Amino acid sequence: MTVIYDDAADFADDQLEGFCSLYSDRLSRVPGGVVAHRSETPQVAVVVGGGSGHYPAFAGLVGPGFASGAVVGNIFTSPSAADVYSVAKAAEQGRGVVLSFGNYAGDVLNFGIAAQRLRSEGIDTRIVVVTDDVASAGAVEDRRGIAGDFAVFKVLTAAAAEGLDIDHVERMGRQANAATYSHGVAFSGCTLPGAPSPLFVVPSGQMSVGLGIHGEPGLRDVDRLPASALAAVLVDAVLAEAPHHASRRVAVILNGLGTTKHEELFLLYRHVARYLADRGLEVVAPEVGELVTSLDMGGCSLTVMWLDDELERLWCADAYAPGYRKLRAPIEGLQESLARVSQDPLTVVEPASTASLAASGVVRRGASAVLDTLRGHEDELGRLDAVAGDGDHGRGMVRGASAAVEALNLLPSSTGVALLLRTAGRAWATRAGGTSGVLWGAGLEAAADALGDSRDRYDDQSVQEAVSAFADAVVQLGGAGVGDKTFVDAIVPFCEALARTSADGAAATWRDASDAATQAAQSTAPLRARRGRARTLAERSVGTADPGAVSFALAVSALADVEIGAES
Amino acid sequence: MTVIYDDAADFADDQLEGFCSLYSDRLSRVPGGVVAHRSETPQVAVVVGGGSGHYPAFAGLVGPGFASGAVVGNIFTSPSAADVYSVAKAAEQGRGVVLSFGNYAGDVLNFGIAAQRLRSEGIDTRIVVVTDDVASAGAVEDRRGIAGDFAVFKVLTAAAAEGLDIDHVERMGRQANAATYSHGVAFSGCTLPGAPSPLFVVPSGQMSVGLGIHGEPGLRDVDRLPASALAAVLVDAVLAEAPHHASRRVAVILNGLGTTKHEELFLLYRHVARYLADRGLEVVAPEVGELVTSLDMGGCSLTVMWLDDELERLWCADAYAPGYRKLRAPIEGLQESLARVSQDPLTVVEPASTASLAASGVVRRGASAVLDTLRGHEDELGRLDAVAGDGDHGRGMVRGASAAVEALNLLPSSTGVALLLRTAGRAWATRAGGTSGVLWGAGLEAAADALGDSRDRYDDQSVQEAVSAFADAVVQLGGAGVGDKTFVDAIVPFCEALARTSADGAAATWRDASDAATQAAQSTAPLRARRGRARTLAERSVGTADPGAVSFALAVSALADVEIGAES
Repeated sequence: MTVIYDDAADFADDQLEGFCSLYSDRLSRVPGGVVAHRSETPQVAVVVGGGSGHYPAFAGLVGPGFASGAVVGNIFTSPSAADVYSVAKAAEQGRGVVLSFGNYAGDVLNFGIAAQRLRSEGIDTRIVVVTDDVASAGAVEDRRGIAGDFAVFKVLTAAAAEGLDIDHVERMGRQANAATYSHGVAFSGCTLPGAPSPLFVVPSGQMSVGLGIHGEPGLRDVDRLPASALAAVLVDAVLAEAPHHASRRVAVILNGLGTTKHEELFLLYRHVARYLADRGLEVVAPEVGELVTSLDMGGCSLTVMWLDDELERLWCADAYAPGYRKLRAPIEGLQESLARVSQDPLTVVEPASTASLAASGVVRRGASAVLDTLRGHEDELGRLDAVAGDGDHGRGMVRGASAAVEALNLLPSSTGVALLLRTAGRAWATRAGGTSGVLWGAGLEAAADALGDSRDRYDDQSVQEAVSAFADAVVQLGGAGVGDKTFVDAIVPFCEALARTSADGAAATWRDASDAATQAAQSTAPLRARRGRARTLAERSVGTADPGAVSFALAVSALADVEIGAES
Repeated sequence: MTVIYDDAADFADDQLEGFCSLYSDRLSRVPGGVVAHRSETPQVAVVVGGGSGHYPAFAGLVGPGFASGAVVGNIFTSPSAADVYSVAKAAEQGRGVVLSFGNYAGDVLNFGIAAQRLRSEGIDTRIVVVTDDVASAGAVEDRRGIAGDFAVFKVLTAAAAEGLDIDHVERMGRQANAATYSHGVAFSGCTLPGAPSPLFVVPSGQMSVGLGIHGEPGLRDVDRLPASALAAVLVDAVLAEAPHHASRRVAVILNGLGTTKHEELFLLYRHVARYLADRGLEVVAPEVGELVTSLDMGGCSLTVMWLDDELERLWCADAYAPGYRKLRAPIEGLQESLARVSQDPLTVVEPASTASLAASGVVRRGASAVLDTLRGHEDELGRLDAVAGDGDHGRGMVRGASAAVEALNLLPSSTGVALLLRTAGRAWATRAGGTSGVLWGAGLEAAADALGDSRDRYDDQSVQEAVSAFADAVVQLGGAGVGDKTFVDAIVPFCEALARTSADGAAATWRDASDAATQAAQSTAPLRARRGRARTLAERSVGTADPGAVSFALAVSALADVEIGAES
């Protein structure tokens, strides 16, 4: 959804004004678009352009080492011939002009008319049209330009920055376009400023294969794929177009269309890089990010440019435009840090007593029972957490408990109860992360220290000591008290119940205590946005239970079925 | 919507692997996160961190001139103490470690535990917590950290890169945090990988004021505002926190949270810059873009850091991290291009004949009639265009016709019919852009040339000549013929009908011709994605009329009420 604007009809002009004021150090506004500030030595002017809504294309690519100017049309609309002429005249430095743009009828017309006009004034003007989108047509000359625009512009502008003459610059641009192929998919549509609904809709759970950068129809809608399969679709479509006698060295662009985030692209790139390597290709200076977007469209595209030595030199050249900055100098001569820290080595402990070994089964069975229960309630805990927090509590607890179980499985059966608990605690804290992770880890380690592995019996008494140690550690580290709406609200009643029952002389029943914990947990109501202890927001409480208290109650209930404290 | 992943639970690790392979030239992966490659001279290690999902925060800020390392937690989850310890050990260079992160309970706990551990090993370790979010709490120390993280990290890391000692680096970090205030709004929620629905929902047409970067509840939901009013809300909230004796020089960050695009932020920045100037503040090296995001959340935040000389020097210092690159060298010594091209001067024409002046009223009335009609059908034309194109046809036609009318209003009543038409055509082409814009412009200019201003009568015959000239220009320039599903499909039948009627000796009725055009337009069915003449897609035709043909028919129908060709 495009949300920020004043008069939707003026969106393109208004955003350009803000853009030009931000980057007045390297470019200036002229009628029809922007031109880069100049260095002393005149060069061939490379003017790119097209509609707005594709940032950093096109104005964001103007600057030292990159485009000399950009013509800026309305959203998704070709600029007029007068705009193209105006920008080209301002960018021209006596060595001729190369106009470059994606292959769309409106741009072909307007840039073409401007070129005639420039030539009629004696300005040597060339045109390099980009046709990289393999899905848009069979014949290459009929294809539209998408993220391949960036690759062709990069080569053209680097050639001009090197001072090459206009014939050479134009030739490199045509060579780059002939070597560049892209394929894109869309996950969701984009909305024009002021429009109530998206330009197009991708059915939920599906993706549109072969989509361009204006919501042109794709080839087909298919079910969404996992990242690995999506990468295969993109790589196969592009490599099927490999030019004859293509080299094995390729420039790669994995381009985000707007709402597909960097993290998703990084994740996808892992697979793309592997598939390309499997096909014997060596990737040179890959670019992963937003280079040619489509407002708030969801989707991505893969572009491959097959390199020769000259294309590679130009692809790798320095550039410093607002929306694209690459320089070799800052990373030259850096040394990789060799320091590495392996995960926390376990502290050596005394050999376990027979009783400790006998009791160890309880810890192993208990950990599995807790994990099963938390797994069963992961979504519920997430929903509870989403009310006040970021909804990750269920996932965090499951990750922690899984880590504990996995770590225990690595330890020999000759491992005592304390070492098991300590290992479980460290594994839990390390993998779960977050607040609850560190508190559970510290609690378990404290319980381990309280029990030790040297006792000659482990009974209800020792269980109480362990539970109290757990509670004390959590309270001390978390700094929360009863009523602060944290899982302390469930721990304390649990300990009290456990103590009470045993005070009657009767064997402590874990079940009674866990029931008390459950009751207490359900009566808590979390404060909103406790993160950062934000008291302003904390005033406003909502009517659901605190997820930390609930997950603690779930865990101790699960343990009720494990004969804890049963004489061994 | 977060769409690209394999196993949602492994999202954070998987994306980090792709990220590290992309940027192995300046950083490397270590257990728990990433560390920057080193220069020869050891420096204080500044280690930042927090959960994943905030790119470029936190791993994207590691590199020369910026962070020495980043600890990477799961999505929106604090990293574990073991992770913090591991990254700090790998980043440490013998001059101590500064740990910096936003004020969230989990991070405070885990970074705190790691700091104790590092100190116990004799490593001088300091902590700088970021508390910039004015909406999250009254007391500054209770506030959470949002985009102000970036400002504080930038100062800390630049100080370390300058070689300052750990006391000085820590002091500058605390000074930066004390001078940094942010306020954010959300337009839409973010989805965790694998989650079926967003973490939170902002009611349609509303925005949530005071929202953080994890979907923590905002202060209130209000109706969405135009950009200018939104800028005022942000500026007022932040400036209300101006520190005492604050300088008049400020660093500014206008941060996009994920799906709010650069163009929207540029547009908003225009107003922010103006309001800050109105308040007597001078903006230094503003940053507008995505610096601290929240997955695919829609929204933005304004951050202001009040500068003193030292903070300003550090804020402006060079940095070259994957997600943030600023260098002075490339733009030093550039010259602003002074060449400017004013819009196309009108060619001088011969004085208009009495008949031409008399006929000129028809052109003025006609232009207004066409504009009114197109305005009334703008949405319908947009919908037709969205079927095959990018939905901008209605807007383009209205912009063109408006430009024509405005241009005509600037011309004196002593202007002849041909000059009026030529002016209208140039204004239309310049403002409308796109394919239809240039074709309408060329058509009108051709009609003007056909008529001239020197005739002693303008009648049905001259109207036919003008219409034929319009049609020929469009056909020749557009390169389309009848049946190609363009507006030629409506122009040609229109001309034929106009010729036919007059051939009968009867006065040509424009109405008959415009009816023929309407009929022809309605019988056209556009090819999909004509842009780029994409034949693959073009095979698939859909059952609605071509928008260009329809808008032509609408225009000529509107003219039927203007007595065209009536003897003057």
